[in-house]
Amino acid sequence: MITAASNARIKFVRNLQARRSAREAERLFVVEGVRLSEEAAKAGARARLVLHTPDLDERGRVVAARLAELGAPVEAVTPAVMAAASDTRAPAGLLAVVPWSDLPLPTPLTLALVLDGLGDPGNVGTALRVAGAAGAQAVFLMPGTVDAYNPKVVRAAMGAHFYLPIVPADWETLPKALAGLDLWLAEAGAGQPYTGVDWRRPAALIVGSEAAGPGAAARALAPGRVTIPMPGRAESLNAAMAAAVLLFEAARQRGTQL
Amino acid sequence: MITAASNARIKFVRNLQARRSAREAERLFVVEGVRLSEEAAKAGARARLVLHTPDLDERGRVVAARLAELGAPVEAVTPAVMAAASDTRAPAGLLAVVPWSDLPLPTPLTLALVLDGLGDPGNVGTALRVAGAAGAQAVFLMPGTVDAYNPKVVRAAMGAHFYLPIVPADWETLPKALAGLDLWLAEAGAGQPYTGVDWRRPAALIVGSEAAGPGAAARALAPGRVTIPMPGRAESLNAAMAAAVLLFEAARQRGTQL
Repeated sequence: MITAASNARIKFVRNLQARRSAREAERLFVVEGVRLSEEAAKAGARARLVLHTPDLDERGRVVAARLAELGAPVEAVTPAVMAAASDTRAPAGLLAVVPWSDLPLPTPLTLALVLDGLGDPGNVGTALRVAGAAGAQAVFLMPGTVDAYNPKVVRAAMGAHFYLPIVPADWETLPKALAGLDLWLAEAGAGQPYTGVDWRRPAALIVGSEAAGPGAAARALAPGRVTIPMPGRAESLNAAMAAAVLLFEAARQRGTQL
Repeated sequence: MITAASNARIKFVRNLQARRSAREAERLFVVEGVRLSEEAAKAGARARLVLHTPDLDERGRVVAARLAELGAPVEAVTPAVMAAASDTRAPAGLLAVVPWSDLPLPTPLTLALVLDGLGDPGNVGTALRVAGAAGAQAVFLMPGTVDAYNPKVVRAAMGAHFYLPIVPADWETLPKALAGLDLWLAEAGAGQPYTGVDWRRPAALIVGSEAAGPGAAARALAPGRVTIPMPGRAESLNAAMAAAVLLFEAARQRGTQL
């Protein structure tokens, strides 16, 4: 039982939680809670470390045992130590340190989401979840976007990291990755109404931050502008909401919801 | 200039921020920031109090002046006092205490959203924003749902409070308010696919919490079950996301996005 927050392993977890540079150096991230740990186990993740409190429930014990079978060292910790290792105010009884997913891009790529300059981790995480639900096959994260393994992104994405390729990209290499796809830039108040776009064609949707709008590089790359007309009084949606409306319209047109 | 957080007016604001019972007793709520204060002013809100820091920018001064014209007492406060009055970690330079909106329900009602048992304020606020964007004419908040004037709800709703009727309701009186509308209960994994529903008919959409699902009263009331098939791997969307997809499908079918 680890009883001190000063333990080297706990410091290691805290560092991964707090610092993007640490996550990038180790190519590891932290998932918290039974549900996300189950997703990790289902994906066969080889966790580097699993922490649990003594009072972990049966469902949690099952997933900890499964991660142990996959090779993870499992350590009991006191609730105070779990609180120190956790990024949340109300820590779950279970936490796992897992490798970055390295999922291959499907070939051919027919529906992709590109997030440009999104600084809000909840928004990015929700967009990842939405992309995973609507059947996007990959999400590209452009410069200025919070990293995919930020703890708040991980929480909001609800397991998308374990089945959806999430690719840090730049504007020089993106065109090659998206070759052959129609490129649509979501814009507030300007462009073709999204219901008039033919989403049955292979397409990538670029969504920028609601505050700043799409960046110059996105504008230069994407010939198409798509907009969501708002019948109500509100003038805009946040990036995750816009992605939800647009990607589910693509799913509707493609008939992939059957 | 108010320089002490112990000032009675500051205590009054803090109480409204912290306690639902205080908001209900006074029928007041707090909006923070220039953008929400502008929405309040645009709606002609008679603010009971406006607080600003000395460094408020020009746009903020204009809206404070407008709220003063509408009858509000305007007080300068120190940044420390603003921090005490604010619900956010990074307080804006402007805050207003405004009356609950008392917007009439449109007649006839043709598109309404009903939120059942939603405990997460960010989710409720985002659902209000989405409803306002998609052209829903009213949102009913059922028991177990966080109150509409919770500070986090207000922030996420981005001004919906000032143009969208938001109605606290109960299961006894709701049927009368929704008389003549098709009632559709959103459900994960069961029911009619949403793209096959005729949303051109007057309709109310009931959305429950993603954790608990729709409650028994909602199930008893609504004959129709509508679902969002997920072509991807994710199994569910949160309530605000589901509302976005469903209400924008209604808008698409109605052709109200032109």
